[in-house]
Amino acid sequence: MDTLDHMSNVPSRERSRSSDVPEGQDAPKPTYAYLGPEGTFSEAALRAMAPEARGLPCVNIPAAMEAVRSGEAEAAVVPLENSLEGAITVTLDEFAWGEHLLITGELLLPVQFSLLAREGMELGDIKRVVSHPAAITQCRNFLARELPDAVVIPAASTAGAARDVSEPGSPFDAAIADPIAAEVYGLVEVAKNIGDRKDTVTRFVRVERPGPLPEPTGADRTSVVAFLKDDHPGALLEMLHEFSVRGINLTRIESRPTRDGIGRYFFHFDCEGHIAEARVGDALAGLHRICAEVRFLGSYPRADAVQPKIKPGTSDEAFAEAAEWLRRMRAGQV
Amino acid sequence: MDTLDHMSNVPSRERSRSSDVPEGQDAPKPTYAYLGPEGTFSEAALRAMAPEARGLPCVNIPAAMEAVRSGEAEAAVVPLENSLEGAITVTLDEFAWGEHLLITGELLLPVQFSLLAREGMELGDIKRVVSHPAAITQCRNFLARELPDAVVIPAASTAGAARDVSEPGSPFDAAIADPIAAEVYGLVEVAKNIGDRKDTVTRFVRVERPGPLPEPTGADRTSVVAFLKDDHPGALLEMLHEFSVRGINLTRIESRPTRDGIGRYFFHFDCEGHIAEARVGDALAGLHRICAEVRFLGSYPRADAVQPKIKPGTSDEAFAEAAEWLRRMRAGQV
Amino acid sequence: MDTLDHMSNVPSRERSRSSDVPEGQDAPKPTYAYLGPEGTFSEAALRAMAPEARGLPCVNIPAAMEAVRSGEAEAAVVPLENSLEGAITVTLDEFAWGEHLLITGELLLPVQFSLLAREGMELGDIKRVVSHPAAITQCRNFLARELPDAVVIPAASTAGAARDVSEPGSPFDAAIADPIAAEVYGLVEVAKNIGDRKDTVTRFVRVERPGPLPEPTGADRTSVVAFLKDDHPGALLEMLHEFSVRGINLTRIESRPTRDGIGRYFFHFDCEGHIAEARVGDALAGLHRICAEVRFLGSYPRADAVQPKIKPGTSDEAFAEAAEWLRRMRAGQV
Amino acid sequence: MDTLDHMSNVPSRERSRSSDVPEGQDAPKPTYAYLGPEGTFSEAALRAMAPEARGLPCVNIPAAMEAVRSGEAEAAVVPLENSLEGAITVTLDEFAWGEHLLITGELLLPVQFSLLAREGMELGDIKRVVSHPAAITQCRNFLARELPDAVVIPAASTAGAARDVSEPGSPFDAAIADPIAAEVYGLVEVAKNIGDRKDTVTRFVRVERPGPLPEPTGADRTSVVAFLKDDHPGALLEMLHEFSVRGINLTRIESRPTRDGIGRYFFHFDCEGHIAEARVGDALAGLHRICAEVRFLGSYPRADAVQPKIKPGTSDEAFAEAAEWLRRMRAGQV
Repeated sequence: MDTLDHMSNVPSRERSRSSDVPEGQDAPKPTYAYLGPEGTFSEAALRAMAPEARGLPCVNIPAAMEAVRSGEAEAAVVPLENSLEGAITVTLDEFAWGEHLLITGELLLPVQFSLLAREGMELGDIKRVVSHPAAITQCRNFLARELPDAVVIPAASTAGAARDVSEPGSPFDAAIADPIAAEVYGLVEVAKNIGDRKDTVTRFVRVERPGPLPEPTGADRTSVVAFLKDDHPGALLEMLHEFSVRGINLTRIESRPTRDGIGRYFFHFDCEGHIAEARVGDALAGLHRICAEVRFLGSYPRADAVQPKIKPGTSDEAFAEAAEWLRRMRAGQV
Repeated sequence: MDTLDHMSNVPSRERSRSSDVPEGQDAPKPTYAYLGPEGTFSEAALRAMAPEARGLPCVNIPAAMEAVRSGEAEAAVVPLENSLEGAITVTLDEFAWGEHLLITGELLLPVQFSLLAREGMELGDIKRVVSHPAAITQCRNFLARELPDAVVIPAASTAGAARDVSEPGSPFDAAIADPIAAEVYGLVEVAKNIGDRKDTVTRFVRVERPGPLPEPTGADRTSVVAFLKDDHPGALLEMLHEFSVRGINLTRIESRPTRDGIGRYFFHFDCEGHIAEARVGDALAGLHRICAEVRFLGSYPRADAVQPKIKPGTSDEAFAEAAEWLRRMRAGQV
Repeated sequence: MDTLDHMSNVPSRERSRSSDVPEGQDAPKPTYAYLGPEGTFSEAALRAMAPEARGLPCVNIPAAMEAVRSGEAEAAVVPLENSLEGAITVTLDEFAWGEHLLITGELLLPVQFSLLAREGMELGDIKRVVSHPAAITQCRNFLARELPDAVVIPAASTAGAARDVSEPGSPFDAAIADPIAAEVYGLVEVAKNIGDRKDTVTRFVRVERPGPLPEPTGADRTSVVAFLKDDHPGALLEMLHEFSVRGINLTRIESRPTRDGIGRYFFHFDCEGHIAEARVGDALAGLHRICAEVRFLGSYPRADAVQPKIKPGTSDEAFAEAAEWLRRMRAGQV
Repeated sequence: MDTLDHMSNVPSRERSRSSDVPEGQDAPKPTYAYLGPEGTFSEAALRAMAPEARGLPCVNIPAAMEAVRSGEAEAAVVPLENSLEGAITVTLDEFAWGEHLLITGELLLPVQFSLLAREGMELGDIKRVVSHPAAITQCRNFLARELPDAVVIPAASTAGAARDVSEPGSPFDAAIADPIAAEVYGLVEVAKNIGDRKDTVTRFVRVERPGPLPEPTGADRTSVVAFLKDDHPGALLEMLHEFSVRGINLTRIESRPTRDGIGRYFFHFDCEGHIAEARVGDALAGLHRICAEVRFLGSYPRADAVQPKIKPGTSDEAFAEAAEWLRRMRAGQV
């Protein structure tokens, strides 16, 4: 939808370095765009998904996705949701409004909390801690035990909290954030792994230009965006029925504003299965019929490798058998 | 309960006469089986649907349908439901359990009520009237006006009431029944057309051996029988959703016992549209997938010629467009 | 709806005998009406449900129910459905259209098939057998083994078949019917218990004048009749949702014509549970709100004593707790 | 992503000033907390909702809501969603996880876009414009017409873009942001009201400590948070049915992570109507029964004053009549 030059403020030095192809190498490494700078959480995800790739740090998520569209990168690795903070709406919106890209893989990256402070600060010195409320909640035991007298101030994000601590004259002594932020903002880890739970994760996806889909593995996920034809009561229920009637479970649903007035939304759906499978294809075609627009974002192996339970009558064989039966009935061969 | 048992022995002579093919005729008339004997309501339906046909009166409805299967008749005309007394269950069960036949047409035949008595009886003589309670209800005004002092006794069917009146030593003076019964049971019409409402009808269908279906007309009906895979709670709801999710209205639903224990049923459905239409075919294929058995009984023009309202996204064009979209998405041509 | 004198053709001798109260007896026996004459299947049901009762045989089912309304009988025992032949529609319609009565109990009575013939007939003599197609199907093995050469002719009911055999000059030699019919029509049992399956049953209900309901037992059934407000597409789905949203399983659904034009139906529902239970009461109240009329036919112990599985959140406790929560919320006591 | 972190340290002076109660005044003004500092969009909302109130600027949204809980303020005005950028998740999460507060009113505040630059900058000088992609999209026509050669760079928020422009040595010349940001960051408005559409709005709500709810007005909205009992397939569909079966339209649905593992969500629902109304209360009680927790956030007049269409059978009168009917049926007074 918007073809702006998202990358224009990435320092050219950084870009050229990242996309630099080593000489005398016959199989050039693919280039992967990500939310820079180097050292971020996104880069860690990229390293886990594509160890051989050359990283292309970008100024923001739309810019990373635009780098794929423009051909500057073969792929991008972008965050989609976090088990604490929810959807990464800028990613969702870029999928919905930007030029079409396909998700070809996903990764669940554990999130760690560390107490970050400026160089020289020690635990005993810390009087004012800043972080996102969810992170504060997650580290409640650590705070009660180690910093019972500290004032704890909420911030809008853990990264923002780290940045605030790093600023000269900051009123804060420490931030709770992921350790990667220490490196990014020049802070030190005063304490590591301080969360009460260890299972916080961020879900990243790999996006590529449209092309052949990953093969079905039996444990796949499919992502779509659906815009309602008209925002009538019951429209959401109708969309969900397109999935449920084919025995397909949704694994995620997000509403986003359509941008033309409060109270009007479109939806991101993740569901079990691969569009190559009959039940998923049929549900998406059904969704396509009743919606103003369905944007297919991809079918790709699930990071958790969970195989869905196929409800009776919804296997590919059942669909094929039903299609053959229908052909016979239409021919009067009852 | 039983309107049909009076026909239990059609003399074989009658049958051979009816199926008799005149010699020296180049275009032989088709033979149509029906619930005999000659002069019944079913024959009237046959005459309305196929004026040129040669009638083959049969001992009962299963026999009429069997005459089609055996090739003795090209088609049969059988009653399916009546707006007063409901489903003709013997017809429903013959469709479900007998060898496959196809419905190729339907007819709505108005039902008329007459007051029938034995020869010589006059209105003033009538003291005891017998009929089906629904018929009594339908003729309330006539009875109040013309026979205010008569005792009115309920019977199990209008035909049975007429037969009862005809029997020697009958305690009844008159029956309310369709005029055809006068002829059948040797009674006379003391009063005609005595119903308060004039819109009582019986729905008849024409059945034939499996073969090419009638062409879609835009105002069609489709009939199926569906046996559940397992009789779990919510199974009926699931079946209805297969129709509703494709925007198809049901025009009739009947439950019938599966014959293997009380509380177990199968279903007859009539819905709008023709199986050749995408939304109907898709719904039936969906039903086929989730059911133990779906028996397709036919798609045929509606007698009332009502054209269904096509819900947005369920036209043939919408299905074709969605299939093409799905093909592109599966190929990654987003 | 109709207040006709249904009982007028019951011989007065029979009536007076049945309702005759013995003198000098401190606890008079209750009088139960049933579909007579004596010796029918309905009487067997009555004997099983109320061994002490004095039976009042009636000319037909509406008459039996009318005898309760008029006070002539304390209760009636009437058939509601049969696992082979389905609903007893005259009973259903009498519940729907007649003056209100309540079901207070049910009974499942096994159905037996015998081969009945006129006195003096032996198995070897039988050449023509008549019965209802379902009964014929149920006795297929017996017929193939014992009467391989007999012609088998379908009839509309087993009772009608027995009556036809009993008539002088009948073209039939034997009927397949329940043994009770032997007695009724003066036939003899040439062979007993000839069905392939032994589980065919008829469901009877006891009906009484409105009054206190039977206490909930934890294994109850509730019966209602529902007339649609307007017969719009999706109306049946809406009614089913009133049950499903409260976790209530339907055990039976029957459509019946509303009598004002083909294609218009009302519904009989049987569901699990007792109206005194919160989830059932709430569902019925919901049905009442969306329907033109809901007629409550009763809550009574199930003959099979099956206890329903209570879905989480639908127990009486859950409803009470939710009501209390709602009260607090409405008061702002969050 | 984060529009709020710029507020991380509100000088304590400012807070005390705001909550300062003038002496010698008999009717003390209520204190309203808001996302400070003075001059923000939130303050404009507060002024519109409560012109007489004394404002208490807070460091962030949780702090504003906490000020209400602690009694420091009588109410807070906080943003809930924006028609361009969607849900304000920090507000949603504070409602879900913080101590209970009640929404007692809402306001839709139009969003305006201005082109903001540092003092002395003129339109002709602007070569690099920064803003949120949605804002860029909204101002496409202005940019094409007035700044055809400018490079346009995406930012995570409009406020963040303004802040970036204000920083010494910024690589950006201008930001597209709401005019209020000019004041906040010491920028000037080079062009006003430059959006293609004029209907972008932010929805604010007033929150108070639990207490009596606003009276129903006939045009109300109700907000709840629902946590699933167990995250089974179909759970969302079940929740939506609790609303749809009572004829209640949802006006907003948001999923948020439960914070205990990716793929687990809870839901924010806004629906039509007031909890004092029978259909709304009944739906919420139903939701309460099937959910692990339902948090009632309030029923309050809709800012748009739209009166919902009451579906037949769901008015208060219909509920009252059904309750009375149920009472009679339970007593056997059919």
